[in-house]
Amino acid sequence: MTELTKEEKEIPVIKYEYLDHTADVQLHAWGDSLEEAFEQCAQAMFGYMTEIDKVEILEKQEIEAQGEDLQSLLFHLLDEFLFLFSAEPFFIARKVKITEFDRVNFKIVATGYGETFDLKKHPQGTEVKAITYSNMQIHDTPNLHAVYVIIDI
Amino acid sequence: MTELTKEEKEIPVIKYEYLDHTADVQLHAWGDSLEEAFEQCAQAMFGYMTEIDKVEILEKQEIEAQGEDLQSLLFHLLDEFLFLFSAEPFFIARKVKITEFDRVNFKIVATGYGETFDLKKHPQGTEVKAITYSNMQIHDTPNLHAVYVIIDI
Repeated sequence: MTELTKEEKEIPVIKYEYLDHTADVQLHAWGDSLEEAFEQCAQAMFGYMTEIDKVEILEKQEIEAQGEDLQSLLFHLLDEFLFLFSAEPFFIARKVKITEFDRVNFKIVATGYGETFDLKKHPQGTEVKAITYSNMQIHDTPNLHAVYVIIDI
Repeated sequence: MTELTKEEKEIPVIKYEYLDHTADVQLHAWGDSLEEAFEQCAQAMFGYMTEIDKVEILEKQEIEAQGEDLQSLLFHLLDEFLFLFSAEPFFIARKVKITEFDRVNFKIVATGYGETFDLKKHPQGTEVKAITYSNMQIHDTPNLHAVYVIIDI
């Protein structure tokens, strides 16, 4: 191996930077009904935010979501729960139960069971920046109830 | 606050999974010449792979890159260095110097200065999966020599 010269060993100054880091992940959730697939999808979103095993069910929060079709209904369901987490009461759900699923008017009432997010108790997971409609899929047949949602992280 | 029932406190089974995690970051590099901007861009790529301060200049590796225009030339420059890292000799460069920059035939000869990647010495950074042409920009005017490259991570 050739010996390197002093000049070759000089460390260059840094003239670069890192911009626009973007990332996403696709949630795939399923269940015995479309309701359960929606519930599981919301749970999957919360599961990305922390180690979900550390979240206890101590209280509950109710949300309402309204859409114009099933896709926007799912979007708003997730978005409502994301909002519960992002602002007061900073609520993270271990479990989501849909109590009303109106497929005619595309309205959902759902309850989240969990607790206030606390960094001392809940390891910081990945920040969920936004729900997206990108490649969203909703399958609802007698044998298959499943959804796919890409979230920006 | 209402007391939760035993049923409400039940933990749901998990019927979800995370798919298709994708991410990218944009490298922005500049210099006193286009050559330097290209060199800095390659250094930026290596800087994303580990704590670049831990990389010593102990040896050198030469690569050749061939393109059909400036964009593909930059692409192949980065790709050649990525390949040096991904396979034998698993080489990580602290410094990149372009020794030949042929703008007529779009050919570059460059030397990387650094050492063999060693997890005991170099903290694992982010895996660079691929260089992309997505929104690639090359600016080369008397006052501005800069490039933007998005890499998949």
